[in-house]
Amino acid sequence: MALDDSLRGKIRQAVADRFGAQTEFLQQLVRFPSTRGNEHTVQDHMARAMLERGYTLDRFAMDRQEIEAHPGGGEISELHSEAPIVVGIHRPRKETGRSLILQGHVDVVPPGPEDMWTTRPFDPVIKDGWMHGRGAGDMKAGVSANLFALDALRAVGLQPAATVYVQSVVEEESTGNGALMTHLRGYKADAALVPEPASENLTRANVGVLWFQFEVRGIPVHVASMGEGANAIDAAYRVVGALRELETKWNDARVDHALFSGVAKPINLNLGKIEGGDWASSVPAWCKVDCRISILPGAGAQEARQEIEACIADFARQDRFLANNPPRVTFNGFVSDGYELKPGS
Amino acid sequence: MALDDSLRGKIRQAVADRFGAQTEFLQQLVRFPSTRGNEHTVQDHMARAMLERGYTLDRFAMDRQEIEAHPGGGEISELHSEAPIVVGIHRPRKETGRSLILQGHVDVVPPGPEDMWTTRPFDPVIKDGWMHGRGAGDMKAGVSANLFALDALRAVGLQPAATVYVQSVVEEESTGNGALMTHLRGYKADAALVPEPASENLTRANVGVLWFQFEVRGIPVHVASMGEGANAIDAAYRVVGALRELETKWNDARVDHALFSGVAKPINLNLGKIEGGDWASSVPAWCKVDCRISILPGAGAQEARQEIEACIADFARQDRFLANNPPRVTFNGFVSDGYELKPGS
Repeated sequence: MALDDSLRGKIRQAVADRFGAQTEFLQQLVRFPSTRGNEHTVQDHMARAMLERGYTLDRFAMDRQEIEAHPGGGEISELHSEAPIVVGIHRPRKETGRSLILQGHVDVVPPGPEDMWTTRPFDPVIKDGWMHGRGAGDMKAGVSANLFALDALRAVGLQPAATVYVQSVVEEESTGNGALMTHLRGYKADAALVPEPASENLTRANVGVLWFQFEVRGIPVHVASMGEGANAIDAAYRVVGALRELETKWNDARVDHALFSGVAKPINLNLGKIEGGDWASSVPAWCKVDCRISILPGAGAQEARQEIEACIADFARQDRFLANNPPRVTFNGFVSDGYELKPGS
Repeated sequence: MALDDSLRGKIRQAVADRFGAQTEFLQQLVRFPSTRGNEHTVQDHMARAMLERGYTLDRFAMDRQEIEAHPGGGEISELHSEAPIVVGIHRPRKETGRSLILQGHVDVVPPGPEDMWTTRPFDPVIKDGWMHGRGAGDMKAGVSANLFALDALRAVGLQPAATVYVQSVVEEESTGNGALMTHLRGYKADAALVPEPASENLTRANVGVLWFQFEVRGIPVHVASMGEGANAIDAAYRVVGALRELETKWNDARVDHALFSGVAKPINLNLGKIEGGDWASSVPAWCKVDCRISILPGAGAQEARQEIEACIADFARQDRFLANNPPRVTFNGFVSDGYELKPGS
């Protein structure tokens, strides 16, 4: 159903009228330092915003057993968030149209070293039409827009003709378990919109993602008697080399994907975090590396996982040091398949 | 002056008689978890042991200004120990012989991951004639021996004919500032013995040591848009590659050293500790690496320091990522020359 021009104009005006309030609400959201596991208070804020608008509130925790049983469930590590998911439900008096899920996530990625910020990460500043602050773009702006879109409709005396679910989730940046949990709780609709920043494109295909950590252990010795290669940090970096070869192999497979063959490097292995050793003078006895790698649609997250394990084990077997100290591989986040929506789906 | 056989036998017997007590004292020392900065209580224990024996106690703090002004002073970072140095002085009634310094250090290197220990690091266990525990060998056994050697003499009714200084220092594993501080306080003697474990050899030449940290910073981006080489961890590891070339160059110089030309690899660069990035999904914006490298006698610690700085700066200039993000180099521990004692010295 196309909107007539006059109604479209009215709605646009109603959105514009509230843009100041929407921006202010976004600033409130950004002030919550809602990194992973720290989203309790921002979710309470979202719940209050939903209740104020008269929506029915459904607030629930992750069901760990259900998530673990689902093939798309991300691994639940000790860093997994325990913040609730909140859903505001708007039901029309008479259900006639098509239902809609508006979803957004309030978890934000770590701010990194604060001294690399020009402004403070959780103190949003508007400059030249842009708001600066961790998570302002990804994706508290979308979360804010979800609520204010409905506010604008109401302001022009309209309401959706079918049920709308406004969902505020967590764990989007690390496992995807927040969105999965809304699915496991039974939420379904004719359409779902997630206003994640994606250069204002509709995304109809994307890579899957896996998170894993590998840890190398080795007998520590005094540096004066160190042998070649017996350093856990060096050994870990050799493992990275093997993983880069896997990354190349997976990228080469893009030619078989209509939607990815034109992308120069759809698969990225990110060496995201490293920690190893205790101090300068001891040959390090341990090193942990946190990685994120993407997979093409159809590659299969479970198969990819096995391939990563095999890649590391195979490399270790032919490495003098690692053969005696095989790395331990842990999947500690995303285990997500890629997807491709067929035209018309 | 050679000892006659009967006296030598008596002294040996007196040492043997006290070996149980000496071992017990060593166990007490090992129970103090005296890693860097945590040597206060073990130094108090040493002070009590000196006072019990009737030695004059000289207990003093590091004089930071004096240390910083001395060319051999190690860099005083925020991790530098603030524990005191304790010296027990035994003065004879009549000073006739040659004076002696008996020095040992009570700081121990980090225990590393506790689950890699068979026994607990600070709970000394004797098995098959060996004591297991962090620092039992390096060098609380020597510290204990220093005290009990004098006890044995006293037990046979003898005392040294000149002043003996029993020195218990800290910062041996990280800067050498403990030993330096005893020197700056004016301690001198005709001979000094440091019973550091060295395969029961007298060491008459050794390499110098430098500690440094370099840090790479870079603009963080989402992993999906990462470019080649813009990862601070990868960039840090490229810097390590440049430092390995410096290590090779310094090792090649060993042919000019009579006492080191026969050693396969006297210079070791140890990548001792690494930390970088915040989590798997962000391209890391930072990475810090703690290194320890040795230098040949005569190389000059200050010159070596400049060479390390130049090596990193030169490498960074020709690296696409590092040219815009030059690593920051900090010297944060040892800045020690090597030494070579000429025969007869």
